[in-house]
Amino acid sequence: MSKTHALIVSAPGAAFEKAEMPVRELTADAVAISIKYSGICHSDIHQARDEWFEGIFPMVPGHEIVGEVTAVGDAVTKFKVGDRVGVGTFVDSCGTCEPCKQGMENYCRTGNVQTYNGRHYDGEESYGGYAKDVVVKEAFVLRVPENLDYAATAPLLCAGVTVYSPLKHWKVGPGMKVGIMGLGGLGHMAVKFAAAMGAETYVLGHSLSKAQDAKDFGAKDYLMTTEIFETHKDFFDVILNTTSTDLDLDSLLGMLKVGGTFVTVGISPNKQEFHPFSVVTALRSIAGANTGSISGTQEMLDFCGEHNIVSTIEMVDASDPKTIDDAYARVVDSDIRYRFVIDASTI
Amino acid sequence: MSKTHALIVSAPGAAFEKAEMPVRELTADAVAISIKYSGICHSDIHQARDEWFEGIFPMVPGHEIVGEVTAVGDAVTKFKVGDRVGVGTFVDSCGTCEPCKQGMENYCRTGNVQTYNGRHYDGEESYGGYAKDVVVKEAFVLRVPENLDYAATAPLLCAGVTVYSPLKHWKVGPGMKVGIMGLGGLGHMAVKFAAAMGAETYVLGHSLSKAQDAKDFGAKDYLMTTEIFETHKDFFDVILNTTSTDLDLDSLLGMLKVGGTFVTVGISPNKQEFHPFSVVTALRSIAGANTGSISGTQEMLDFCGEHNIVSTIEMVDASDPKTIDDAYARVVDSDIRYRFVIDASTI
Repeated sequence: MSKTHALIVSAPGAAFEKAEMPVRELTADAVAISIKYSGICHSDIHQARDEWFEGIFPMVPGHEIVGEVTAVGDAVTKFKVGDRVGVGTFVDSCGTCEPCKQGMENYCRTGNVQTYNGRHYDGEESYGGYAKDVVVKEAFVLRVPENLDYAATAPLLCAGVTVYSPLKHWKVGPGMKVGIMGLGGLGHMAVKFAAAMGAETYVLGHSLSKAQDAKDFGAKDYLMTTEIFETHKDFFDVILNTTSTDLDLDSLLGMLKVGGTFVTVGISPNKQEFHPFSVVTALRSIAGANTGSISGTQEMLDFCGEHNIVSTIEMVDASDPKTIDDAYARVVDSDIRYRFVIDASTI
Repeated sequence: MSKTHALIVSAPGAAFEKAEMPVRELTADAVAISIKYSGICHSDIHQARDEWFEGIFPMVPGHEIVGEVTAVGDAVTKFKVGDRVGVGTFVDSCGTCEPCKQGMENYCRTGNVQTYNGRHYDGEESYGGYAKDVVVKEAFVLRVPENLDYAATAPLLCAGVTVYSPLKHWKVGPGMKVGIMGLGGLGHMAVKFAAAMGAETYVLGHSLSKAQDAKDFGAKDYLMTTEIFETHKDFFDVILNTTSTDLDLDSLLGMLKVGGTFVTVGISPNKQEFHPFSVVTALRSIAGANTGSISGTQEMLDFCGEHNIVSTIEMVDASDPKTIDDAYARVVDSDIRYRFVIDASTI
């Protein structure tokens, strides 16, 4: 088995260090990728610190990967050496459950194979994008449009598609008013997408310090969430929540038009409550969504190519692994505008 | 102002008595209706007892009305004397708000005029269907198909359309699995509709005593709700709740397929809670809906005409007004299969 240079966490919450880690064999249906850039997602932090479930250590986080194809298996038809490609949050799925058969591999009921901190169906651990190389089955590799800035494309593979998918699912477009709750890694992408889709887009937040950024990303206005419950009743067609905070659902639902949808991609650790009147009286829905399918991710990347949309990023030089620990601390403090991307050449 | 014989409640919770009550003037846009039958809805009881909000007394309940046109205003074009017609839960709406302009008068944001226990826009009290006569604006009168049993059609005007509308909105049809929670006035109509729409329909309840009825109405099976949380995971496309009980939403959501919807038309007086994971992990929605529009109600009646669907009823002779008090007690005890209908000739 070949190896690659990677940034690892050896145990829950440990500091990052460099190490050589195994790379999967290049099977006939797989593509070898030389990683160029890898985004830092908040979920990387939760998993590196074992905050969600018992992880597999050593861990190589990273599921926002862009790179270049360096080799392809004998049966590969979609990619050739030199192609610009991306890898998102999962690298395999069962292919036999109802959602998989419908092309919704992100909701695979068997449990898809997470890009890192998971196990392939053959039992091997999966290692992610904070590395120089990765081998992924062709069917789970995305094509990155040539015109997009390479580094700023990386966060599209998780943060991007996670908000693009629900905006598409709930048919956001011209004539609609959309509220985006939170302006972080996911939220800033949601604003760019919703505006590009033609919707009148608003950011709902709690700090005016990001108001100008919101407008620069395409928002019509930045609204202080708690101040608009009364002034913006029946106002939005869709509210997309990208925060992980507890929600005043009755007030938020009250801001939705008849038939409107509140959809969350952020997950609070706590149960949330609402009064049935808040949905019954206006045909409203409370929904949730989780990343995107492979075809949906490709559609999102193509949409980005067409509209020249990328993430707003800050580059991380990983020559000293401690830089990643520092970046994590800043993500936890919401002190990043708007996504860290690791330059894999420094690993 | 002309008068009509009616059954009234003179004060919150009082016994029913007979009285003469005013009937609205026959304006150019209105239709005079000789009421033949009027259904008893559970909401009549809540309002006659002031359990929801401070009502207007004396009250003539009833918003499931069928009757015959006896006179039409000069500008009426849709109806003529002798037509079989129906009136549902509201008899006017503002016509200018966004939902009204979109033909969703049931969600009028100004507040539509409830068929009883409300006020017309000119300030007059509205009186309902437990009476011999009513005058209603043409635009809020429905046409009743000739082939339907007259008396058993009355409950379609509220119980029927309240469940038909969400089933249509969430596109219930062949190839789908639908769960109906509760088999009362609304639930039994929901089963008939969902089955006629071609869906594989199940009743979710807590007593097997109605199992045979469920199958007679078109259900594939009657399932004990609490016994199927584990055995029916990812099973239903839509679950429609017609009960007013508190809900174990996380367990109920777990029975929905990816992309499935839990929709409630029943309203518990309490807040309901769920964990965000229950919606996020499978693109699920929690929704609510309230009666139907005028065009949706007409569509429902036409659907019933086509499929020969009516409510399963027990007739009430109101010669002695105490019969209504007794019927109310039985509705509260869920001791009715499945809807009481008052014979207006006995009022």
